[in-house]
Amino acid sequence: MTTKTQNIAVLGAGTVGSQVIRLINEHRDDLQARSGAVLNISAVLVRNLDAKRDYDVDQTLLTTDAEGAIDGADIVIELIGGIEPAYSYVKRALNNGSTVITGNKALLAQHGPELYELAAENDTDLYYEAAVAGAVPIVYGLRESLAGDRVNRMIGIVNGTTNFILDQMATTGASYDDALKEAQELGFAEADPTADVEGLDAAAKCAIMASLAFHSRVSMEDVAVEGITKITAQDMEEAAENGMVIKLLAIAERRVDDEGVEGIGAQVYPALVPTTHPLATVSGAFNAVVLENESAGRLMFYGQGAGGAPTASAVLSDLVAGASHRVHGGHAPRESRYAELPILDPGSAQTRYQVRIKVEERAGVLEEVAGIFARHGVSLLTVQQNVPEPGKDVHIVLATHTTRDSDLQAVIDALGKSKVVQAVESSLRVEGDN
Amino acid sequence: MTTKTQNIAVLGAGTVGSQVIRLINEHRDDLQARSGAVLNISAVLVRNLDAKRDYDVDQTLLTTDAEGAIDGADIVIELIGGIEPAYSYVKRALNNGSTVITGNKALLAQHGPELYELAAENDTDLYYEAAVAGAVPIVYGLRESLAGDRVNRMIGIVNGTTNFILDQMATTGASYDDALKEAQELGFAEADPTADVEGLDAAAKCAIMASLAFHSRVSMEDVAVEGITKITAQDMEEAAENGMVIKLLAIAERRVDDEGVEGIGAQVYPALVPTTHPLATVSGAFNAVVLENESAGRLMFYGQGAGGAPTASAVLSDLVAGASHRVHGGHAPRESRYAELPILDPGSAQTRYQVRIKVEERAGVLEEVAGIFARHGVSLLTVQQNVPEPGKDVHIVLATHTTRDSDLQAVIDALGKSKVVQAVESSLRVEGDN
Repeated sequence: MTTKTQNIAVLGAGTVGSQVIRLINEHRDDLQARSGAVLNISAVLVRNLDAKRDYDVDQTLLTTDAEGAIDGADIVIELIGGIEPAYSYVKRALNNGSTVITGNKALLAQHGPELYELAAENDTDLYYEAAVAGAVPIVYGLRESLAGDRVNRMIGIVNGTTNFILDQMATTGASYDDALKEAQELGFAEADPTADVEGLDAAAKCAIMASLAFHSRVSMEDVAVEGITKITAQDMEEAAENGMVIKLLAIAERRVDDEGVEGIGAQVYPALVPTTHPLATVSGAFNAVVLENESAGRLMFYGQGAGGAPTASAVLSDLVAGASHRVHGGHAPRESRYAELPILDPGSAQTRYQVRIKVEERAGVLEEVAGIFARHGVSLLTVQQNVPEPGKDVHIVLATHTTRDSDLQAVIDALGKSKVVQAVESSLRVEGDN
Repeated sequence: MTTKTQNIAVLGAGTVGSQVIRLINEHRDDLQARSGAVLNISAVLVRNLDAKRDYDVDQTLLTTDAEGAIDGADIVIELIGGIEPAYSYVKRALNNGSTVITGNKALLAQHGPELYELAAENDTDLYYEAAVAGAVPIVYGLRESLAGDRVNRMIGIVNGTTNFILDQMATTGASYDDALKEAQELGFAEADPTADVEGLDAAAKCAIMASLAFHSRVSMEDVAVEGITKITAQDMEEAAENGMVIKLLAIAERRVDDEGVEGIGAQVYPALVPTTHPLATVSGAFNAVVLENESAGRLMFYGQGAGGAPTASAVLSDLVAGASHRVHGGHAPRESRYAELPILDPGSAQTRYQVRIKVEERAGVLEEVAGIFARHGVSLLTVQQNVPEPGKDVHIVLATHTTRDSDLQAVIDALGKSKVVQAVESSLRVEGDN
């Protein structure tokens, strides 16, 4: 068997990096048998040579000399995160003709297209399975397993922090603020949780997956984002009563807008999901992505979305592929953007909704509310109103048939202006078939 | 972009073959953009030129000349099924240096190793994503996504016929015979259902997946098989009462036997699965495979396990990969069997059990039964006995802690000889953590 030594520079020895180094050391023989390459860690780039690490990394490999580490490597594994200096390091490695493996979704969301092109220009490969959904092999799934099919829709739970918070709210009845606080105390949410709870992290992953699924360029700015901060304990309770859970979903779909233009809709929002839906049982640290495809029908990929070892597993699958290509020839699939589908206005998306409003207690209110939906062409599936009791608010919960997003927004505006409606308390999309 | 015409011979134009031809015709531009190859169907091998087909295949491509079809092709897609003539055709194609794509699990189960070697000798590729679990990309998953990890255990629902029958029994209370008859009437089971209901089809898939997961050669004969024919309506009812369902599972695991030998256990059997387990909701035509991995933890792949279009989707992903390698260089991962793990005796497997026995109605019976378990070192988790009523049988249902298969078999033998036990009515393994 051909074997060739591959020098590997690991940039960053944090949670994921230290696991990658450990696994390369512990499974060197297996990785060699599978890739045909002798994997030699030639340098580990760190900021502080004396910092305490999760795994006892060989001290002689540690360096703060980034250029030396990169220039001496055949394969560069970038696990620093953030834009700079990761961006400069990855460019340098690609310009050297090295294979680059990264877990940096922020970098890809901001500079992906340029980096994919740089890899192609230098006849080398850029791998990024670890950048999306941890151990879930969704990049392989989209780049290879679905290469012969047509993906119509993708729905993912790809952010562990929000999934934890929503789980806590559902199981304990906690408010959003209390569940967030608990997540922060347990280390599942950062001190500044904005990127997670506002859906920005999910949007970055959504953009990467949508680009792969639809063979087009989708950037983070193309994704319409709504976070989970407005979800209340009452929303959760009501969802449970109706056999539903609330999940933060990353959705991208191929659809035709009102002008007949075929394009991509990409959105992140919290939605009601029936407990019978495969995504409903995805809890805690698990991620899952459902793909609805023309020929294959529905496929689901499910696994751990974060953590040192699960993310390292994704890095190592890329390492075996990358090393194998360096030894035996061939390449990873290149960026595929030939379809060049445009991004559509989220207003043209079609989904079901559930709206809860607080109303005056008097005859004719239901008719008036129903009339507002009817006037905007939004058809109702069910209407529930609680029995009026003295001193208790009157709520109406309305579930719609599939409707255009912009029509529903017009209904919400009209409800807000109606004299009989005291408050529009929530409006949530409902995932799953009618 | 490099493009090169690839001549494709499709052998067999049945349910899957006709869908493959349709999809190549309908998506030729997409497939070209993704593979870099102009995909030209050069021949479609059929037995009868005038047979009616699901898709209107270009008559001028039809031929009964197998050698001509194969020799004129760069890529041969074998969808005939069975051993001969498929075996001879695939060998001929590989000896020609052609890329071969097959959906033929029987062929791989019987001649896989020889064919993998023949592909390597001729410096070409053999793809078989469609041979296991239809559209579920488990071959990609094991060959590529898990290439950097260590699979410890694999549990799959990979046979649609038995899944349909068990579903029917669970939802309607039907007996096994009635559910089988219905499956046959609806076309979900064949007139001779042996291969499905006795677990042989699942065993062939189990062998292919275990070979990939453990980088060793596992043949169908290495898989200990038990079918679903003994499952009764009462087993189903009792499962439901305990929050479980019964599923036919294909299981392969890495374990250490009593002599300290590390090896592979591979089994197919019906088991109780808690309704909270991700496999419990896999119903009807869907298949799923759960992989438990050292670093990635638990991953699940889920999708349609059969059918023309879903299986064709798997064939086309292989076609894009194969054509791309022919144009751009490189290869699919070769057979990886370096680990050469031995196959272990199924008796050394460890699992939980649930046993139902019919007993005499008299004092001391429970103690005697419990004593039999204790004497064989099998520890009990729960014991349930129905309240004795005149004219009604007395049943005891015993759930064990994790125990060795051979110890449990010894218990069953001893129960059969015990004077207080009238019948051992069922003994089923229980999947999931204790």
